[in-house]
Order: sequence, then C-alpha cells, then structure tokens
Amino acid sequence: MPLVPKLSHATRPLTFEVEALNERGEVLPTAIAGEHPLTLYVDKREIVTLMTLGQAPEALAIGYLRNQRLVRALDQIAEVQVDWETDAVAVSTRGGIEGLDGKMDKRTVTTGCGQGTVFGSLMDEVDTIRLRDDVKLEEETLYDVLDAVRRHETIYKSAGAVHGCALASGSEILYFVEDVGRHNAVDAIAGRMWLDGVDGSDKIFYTTGRLTSEMVIKTAQMGIPFLVSRSGLTQMGYQIAAKVGMTMIGRAVNKHYLLFTGRERFIKTIMPTMLA
Amino acid sequence: MPLVPKLSHATRPLTFEVEALNERGEVLPTAIAGEHPLTLYVDKREIVTLMTLGQAPEALAIGYLRNQRLVRALDQIAEVQVDWETDAVAVSTRGGIEGLDGKMDKRTVTTGCGQGTVFGSLMDEVDTIRLRDDVKLEEETLYDVLDAVRRHETIYKSAGAVHGCALASGSEILYFVEDVGRHNAVDAIAGRMWLDGVDGSDKIFYTTGRLTSEMVIKTAQMGIPFLVSRSGLTQMGYQIAAKVGMTMIGRAVNKHYLLFTGRERFIKTIMPTMLA
Repeated sequence: MPLVPKLSHATRPLTFEVEALNERGEVLPTAIAGEHPLTLYVDKREIVTLMTLGQAPEALAIGYLRNQRLVRALDQIAEVQVDWETDAVAVSTRGGIEGLDGKMDKRTVTTGCGQGTVFGSLMDEVDTIRLRDDVKLEEETLYDVLDAVRRHETIYKSAGAVHGCALASGSEILYFVEDVGRHNAVDAIAGRMWLDGVDGSDKIFYTTGRLTSEMVIKTAQMGIPFLVSRSGLTQMGYQIAAKVGMTMIGRAVNKHYLLFTGRERFIKTIMPTMLA
Repeated sequence: MPLVPKLSHATRPLTFEVEALNERGEVLPTAIAGEHPLTLYVDKREIVTLMTLGQAPEALAIGYLRNQRLVRALDQIAEVQVDWETDAVAVSTRGGIEGLDGKMDKRTVTTGCGQGTVFGSLMDEVDTIRLRDDVKLEEETLYDVLDAVRRHETIYKSAGAVHGCALASGSEILYFVEDVGRHNAVDAIAGRMWLDGVDGSDKIFYTTGRLTSEMVIKTAQMGIPFLVSRSGLTQMGYQIAAKVGMTMIGRAVNKHYLLFTGRERFIKTIMPTMLA
C-alpha cells in the first residue's frame, strides 16, 4: 500500500462582500476574492509565504514542493496540516529534504502572477524533459474543453481577481482550481495529481493566465504535452515550449485559437468552411 | 547639486514575431512580448532574478530596490549598469546597504503577477503610512485618465501578455510602463519617480492589474493617495486600502467604475442622468 500523507482539510471562505459606489451614485454590495498569507514550513523550517485564495491549501503546499523540486515523490511527505489561526501550513517529511539549503539559495523571481519564485535551477531541467509524442489532441476536444471551462462555476464570475487552471482528460475536466495567484492554481493541481496518482502524460492543461516561461516549465515538469490558454504568450514561453516540443495553444476562446508549437500532436477535424 | 546615479540605457526589443496556426488553418505572423531574465546585483551581491520585458531595466532595478525598502534614497545609488550579454544589472551603492542579510532573510511570495517577492516586513510599515487628505479626485479627471490610458500606444495592443501601469498628474499621464510582470511595471515607475524627483502625494496610479495586497502596499509606500484599476480587487487589497485611507477604484473602464475605499477624496461631478 502506498504511503499517503495525512492531510487537514482547511478551505477558507472564498469570497467576501464589500460596498462599492458606482458611476450612478449607487451603493452596490460587491463580491471580492479572498486573499490570505499562508506560510509554508517543511519540518519546522520556514520556506515561503504564499498569498492564496485558500481553496485547496493542502494540495497547494504539496504541489508547490513538487513543482519547486523540493520533494521528488509524494511518499516523502508524511503530513500536511494547515492552521488558519496562524496562517501556516506545516509539512512533515519522512527523512527530511536533501540539499534544502542549496536549493533555497538560488531563487528566481519569475514573471507569472502568483508565486513568482523558483528555487534552484529549474531551467536546467528543461533540457531533460521529454513529452510523449504518441498522444494527439483533436480540434473538437479542444473546443469541448473550452466549453467545459466556460460553463464551470467560478469565483472569477462572481468576484473576479483570480486565475483559474484546469486539468482535462480528453473532454473531461478532472480538476478546476482558482487562486489569486495563477501559479498557486497550477501548483494546487500538481498537488492533487500526486495525491490521486494522476499521470499527466496524455492530459490537457488549461489556464486563464498568460503563457510565460514559468507556466510552460511547470506544465513540462508535470509531463503534460498540451497547454492551452485564453491569454497570450511571451517569447520565452514560446522558446521553451518549442524546445520541449509542447503543443501550446494561446488565445483560445470560443471557436478561436492560435496553435503556436507542437503542431504534430494537433489534429484538425473541422473544415474552415464549417466555421461561422 | 543632488547626487544622480550613472545609468546605462539598455532597452530590449519589446516584441517578436512568431508563426501561429489559427482555427481557419491559416498561418499568421503573430507578435509576442519579450521576456528576459535580469539578475540584480547590488555591490556584486546577487539579490534576485526578475523576468522582464526589458523596456526600462535601469528604472526597474532602482524601483525594485526602492519598493523593497533595500534603498532609502536615490543618492545611495552610485551607478546602474544593465548588460544584456550576461542578463545582469549591476547596482553600485555609495556606502553599501545596511542590514541587507537580515532583509533578505524573510521573503514573502506574493499574489501579484510579476515579482512576487517582498523582502523584510513591508506589512509592518503599512501602519506608519499617512496619505494626504487635502487632495481630491474629480470624476471627470478619472474619466480623462481612463481615456488617456485607452488611447496610449501599447505593447498590450500589439502582443498582449503584458501589464501596464501609469502615473498621472491630474489628467496628464507622466509615465506609462508595461512589463510581463505587473509588479515590474510598478517598480519601474517608482524608479522613474525617484530619478525625476516626482512626488507621489497628489498623483493617480493606474494599473491594468488586480488590486491585490502588494499592489496596494506599493502604491501606499510611494505615498500615492489614488489607485485605479480596470480589474478587480482582493479582500486583503481592500483591507489595506481601507486601513491607510487610500482612494481605491476598481473595474474602471470607459464610463464605469466602482469606488471602494477613501470616498472622501472623490468628487462626483457628473449627474447620473447625464450618463448614457
């Protein structure tokens, strides 16, 4: 039986109501997104303070450690306890983390919304990543995913000011996580994938956020070959996606998209003449 | 004569063109925003690597040090040299930075797009901030600023994937900076304000990004009483703005806005009946 970490389940209230005065002089009750500091401790050592919506703090902590390469496998983690009284998440490992000091020495502040910090030399790892080349994405599946995301109930619709990420298997949304930082949302999905033993190698990752270098790196690290965003991309995001051979699609809204890299995995199924 | 730092002027190309395949099967040349790592050294000590568009790297470095409270006055900085061969910006100080180790010890990874890291205990400073209460913002001025921002030529219009910030004096835009990380854009404006001796105490700060805790803190630190965004806000952004008495306006697009905090500085000049 695999070693499963013991978890708290400490979700925060996600929205709050405040008053705002609009251009008509009306006082409107307005929903706003929560934002909470959450300080991550690993074996009682302080690692970082994340600012989070608090939707999935345990998965966030696990995914953060995974995506920062501070933890290499889920069975290294014995327990994850979130305590909102002290705004802290305490992670206990089995046997500690080797070379933690060295990894924490070099931090890169990255472009993305959200966490913005990458420990160690993640960029060096990009060269070693191989994404599966025997998986395909059909155009119709892409549209199905976009439609499923659009129909999803979200904090964004009620309060704005959050980014959303989804992991899809074919047309089915497996996870949908929102956070005030989009990288928290990515990390929370990475954490849930580990907890549920979900393999990324044939999955589709959707984000509302921009395709910057760190977003592409994190997707590649999770072994996911398909990355879709409703937003645009940066030059470095493009370069890294091209390098690892990721199928990356930007500006994907309704029936529009731009396929940037990894065209060989994409199967066009709808004739242009069939589009409105 | 005040001591002025010696600066390089090393702007990067801001957009690049790549090919993308759209839903009609057409190959489109598509502009994308640049994204470059820029490692900041202070007196040869590595501080952080920022991911930046590279529009105003010297002002970014200065504003970063200002907003992180690592440098307290511009005359502490002797020289700022950006070298894109090595992706580095070297800052030389006059007399070093006191307590740098202690300040770098505590880093908070914040919610915002962009830099995401706050050194030291910036939150503690919030209590000491007093914004001017003898300045007002007329509704018409707000609309003028929104209109000026809308008409501004931007990387966003051509390539997307960037955030913009502007500093306005009345209806006039003094600075407009874009970056792949919105906090870089804020910091670059903070840097330019120092370089030009511009006081923030009667200015309007506009951002395309969300009003999260760190955006509000940075605006307050610059002494700016008016913060305007086309996006929404978070609970912590709201709480801090209310605490420091900032006049904060969200969802400001065209003739719409939501005034959240600091209503006493806002003067409504247009009757609701005059709105379309």
